Amino acid sequence: MNPTQTEITPENTRIGWIGTGVMGASMCRHLMHAGYQTTLFNRTKAKAQPLIDLGAGWVDNPAQVAAASDIVFTIVGFPNDVKQTLLGDDGVLSGLAAGGTIVDMTTSQPALAQEIAAAAAAKNCSALDAPVSGGDVGARGAALSIMVGGPKDEFHRLLPLFSLMGRTIQYQGLAGSGQHTKMVNQILIATGMIGVCEALLYGFKAGLNLESVLKSVSAGAAGSWSLSNMAPRLLKGDYQPGFFIEHFIKDMGIALEEAKRMNLSLPGLSLAEQLYLATAAQGHSKSGTQALLLALAKLSNVDWKEN
Amino acid sequence: MNPTQTEITPENTRIGWIGTGVMGASMCRHLMHAGYQTTLFNRTKAKAQPLIDLGAGWVDNPAQVAAASDIVFTIVGFPNDVKQTLLGDDGVLSGLAAGGTIVDMTTSQPALAQEIAAAAAAKNCSALDAPVSGGDVGARGAALSIMVGGPKDEFHRLLPLFSLMGRTIQYQGLAGSGQHTKMVNQILIATGMIGVCEALLYGFKAGLNLESVLKSVSAGAAGSWSLSNMAPRLLKGDYQPGFFIEHFIKDMGIALEEAKRMNLSLPGLSLAEQLYLATAAQGHSKSGTQALLLALAKLSNVDWKEN
Repeated sequence: MNPTQTEITPENTRIGWIGTGVMGASMCRHLMHAGYQTTLFNRTKAKAQPLIDLGAGWVDNPAQVAAASDIVFTIVGFPNDVKQTLLGDDGVLSGLAAGGTIVDMTTSQPALAQEIAAAAAAKNCSALDAPVSGGDVGARGAALSIMVGGPKDEFHRLLPLFSLMGRTIQYQGLAGSGQHTKMVNQILIATGMIGVCEALLYGFKAGLNLESVLKSVSAGAAGSWSLSNMAPRLLKGDYQPGFFIEHFIKDMGIALEEAKRMNLSLPGLSLAEQLYLATAAQGHSKSGTQALLLALAKLSNVDWKEN
Repeated sequence: MNPTQTEITPENTRIGWIGTGVMGASMCRHLMHAGYQTTLFNRTKAKAQPLIDLGAGWVDNPAQVAAASDIVFTIVGFPNDVKQTLLGDDGVLSGLAAGGTIVDMTTSQPALAQEIAAAAAAKNCSALDAPVSGGDVGARGAALSIMVGGPKDEFHRLLPLFSLMGRTIQYQGLAGSGQHTKMVNQILIATGMIGVCEALLYGFKAGLNLESVLKSVSAGAAGSWSLSNMAPRLLKGDYQPGFFIEHFIKDMGIALEEAKRMNLSLPGLSLAEQLYLATAAQGHSKSGTQALLLALAKLSNVDWKEN
């Protein structure tokens, strides 16, 4: 931290928050509980109402959020939403005073994070890209992993805020590095999920008792978070979203686009994207990522629901 | 357990052991340390010498092992070795007295396990298929996962012996079910390893600090045994075998052959097999499974060794 900077406290820092979906609402609530004065905007006002009831101020666009804030957090949907929210006509940067900071926690494009950082710097503001993993449960429990790119001193200065939302908070490098790290995370999950689903289908077709199989394979070299958490849901026929397939398809698209730009062939991730596109085509874009199993089951005409 | 059966003890049961490679030698040693009289055979006698020095008897072929034993364990290389060792001219079944038991702990074909079980039953003997996971470390520490198929009462009768070698010992069903369960295990590892290697290559090309990335992604939804154990080795350029690629290619071949027989398409496993064949073609058949990264690196002309 720059020793001339004052430590961030609820007394000296006004927070702005844009994006109050399942993740954002929980994360913002942690800052408010710590005493931070907060100004909100969200595309659908109804989703922000519980935070307004807690005392957050409501304004009509991102620029007005920025005008009332020292640090503005965003966690919205797709890269185009990020761009509009931060760089658009009524966007955050148009309202943010010099010295202000933008923290985009949406999972978005590394290249866009760099563009935002440059635009912020041109206005004597700072920007961090800080996507998260941990899902709704991690957001509620302030147990997220937060992967941060941007100016290192700004990362250190904002640590007291990140610490209210996450448990694993890691600086990853210059602008875009947080997003790149999140892509690493998603590549691991995407390809690993193919393995979980194919393994269960194999066991099912072989006539095994899958609960018993999981006891044999979960604790050793085949073990993973996905196996421990998603296989039991699949055995119950539970396809409820922890994370929407349509959002996962967005993330895989970003990773493959970046990989193409870097001249990197990722055959496993490419297969995962194709299988997830098939899963969505079969009506599961709003199901959880574990519903990939249903596309693989349909591919071989396996009646998984009889499981 | 059949209440008329006597519990297995070193006083009433003679053990035979065939296959004293890295895994087999450790597993056999645990039985000997518990006091079991043991008769050995191995294709390469030198590898059995430490156990002979501990007091095991040496004979010249599997039939002679069987003639001196009540229960014969085998853990050899490929399915053809299993077939030769158990069903061949000087094989175990030609020497085993009625009432004897065969336990094949090789990772092998489910169909062959069924053939062995039938041949054993025809001689009033029993057979269990009991492949393991946990590698050399698990074998040394008696911490293996042992996945057992065959007659359930025989599984229960032999539990005192399995408990000397493993920590997770699970009955999986009739003959072949232990092998099928091991295939589930290998499908998970194979496809998961693609994800680990692609994720590291992505992060490397993006210029990230991979140690720092692992801190962000290892503990959450992207976490796995492979990531925690293999990624650090890859960052050090360590391709030493915990498990040989040539053996993994054997296992994937068995799983894909069984899947084909069951009319099950496994695109992820098929891709893994192709990538591992490429890794072997590049001179890494005796490297550890993590060396898959090198084939993916070569595919995109990435100079990973500069990492």
